Amino acid sequence: MERLDEQIRFITEIGRLKGVLRQTMLAGPGRRENSAEHSWHLAVMALTLAEHAPPGTDIGRVTAMVLVHDLVEIDAGDLFVYADAAQQARQEEAERAAADRIFALLPEDQAGRLRGLWDEFEERRTPDARFARALDRLQPMLENLKAGGGTWREHGITADQVLTRVVPLIEDGSPTLGRYARDLVQRAVRDGLLAPG
Amino acid sequence: MERLDEQIRFITEIGRLKGVLRQTMLAGPGRRENSAEHSWHLAVMALTLAEHAPPGTDIGRVTAMVLVHDLVEIDAGDLFVYADAAQQARQEEAERAAADRIFALLPEDQAGRLRGLWDEFEERRTPDARFARALDRLQPMLENLKAGGGTWREHGITADQVLTRVVPLIEDGSPTLGRYARDLVQRAVRDGLLAPG
Repeated sequence: MERLDEQIRFITEIGRLKGVLRQTMLAGPGRRENSAEHSWHLAVMALTLAEHAPPGTDIGRVTAMVLVHDLVEIDAGDLFVYADAAQQARQEEAERAAADRIFALLPEDQAGRLRGLWDEFEERRTPDARFARALDRLQPMLENLKAGGGTWREHGITADQVLTRVVPLIEDGSPTLGRYARDLVQRAVRDGLLAPG
Repeated sequence: MERLDEQIRFITEIGRLKGVLRQTMLAGPGRRENSAEHSWHLAVMALTLAEHAPPGTDIGRVTAMVLVHDLVEIDAGDLFVYADAAQQARQEEAERAAADRIFALLPEDQAGRLRGLWDEFEERRTPDARFARALDRLQPMLENLKAGGGTWREHGITADQVLTRVVPLIEDGSPTLGRYARDLVQRAVRDGLLAPG
């Protein structure tokens, strides 16, 4: 039973992701989104938007990747996508330490496999990782649109910033979703939800 | 773009699952769990506990199943597992109507596929559906244990009730997880988190 005990300890520990808050505001409940429900949303997006992934993408791996991509935030917290380079560097170090601790709760073979998925997501070199990242960047845009501007308005983000920092990562993972995101920015500007530049 | 528009409409609509509260209390944040983060937790459990599923179980299908199994609660709300038969019957009808509405937001082929997964989960006849149901029943037990008794204490649930209404559904999906759940009940009684009978 030792192996199952380790697995259950991991499952219990990662439940803490439900308490990690992101910047994203949820229009319905009127509160910040947590990283567990964000990860769920990405996983359903992976299932639903699979046909817009480049040929050869393995949607099962993408789904697993988005399910575990934020576990490190249990220790490292969530960093806003528009944070500066120094903050990003500190965050990367904290996330690596968190990955070392959290995945190691699992039996060794599983720890290696899930840690490998997380590393792959972070490195963004494979089609699977690039598509996962595209979903991770598109989802908050949809929430902002629903929340009348959401974090765009709150932090005074401009269309230029979204087009420079966010949309290219979506295009990189899926040309189709990239085009959709570009249109979405135009719509948000037209509707007064996002400042032009 | 019409197909993608339908997919995005579905993705936006299902975000409302983040606002559907369950009975389960979360020890860390000190609030009720919502059905989106619950679904995420089950999906990671599917990845982690795959080896305890009966031979022939398709974990990719199980993962997809748990990701969408609660979408109907957007319209029908969540029903406590210990609700009476009349309440259960009313709930089933409300959930079917919800499934008719929500999955139909998707393009027809995808609507059929995801609705099929939901029907399969509800009918609990295939190994995939039984394993998914086992995870769905085990996860709240783990949360109750972590929350010092949680909904067991709050609603005066006894070990007999857990052993009659919950543990058999876990055993049905996975003999190994069933044994684990049976031990967990004993431990909870011994630690004073669950009344004996």
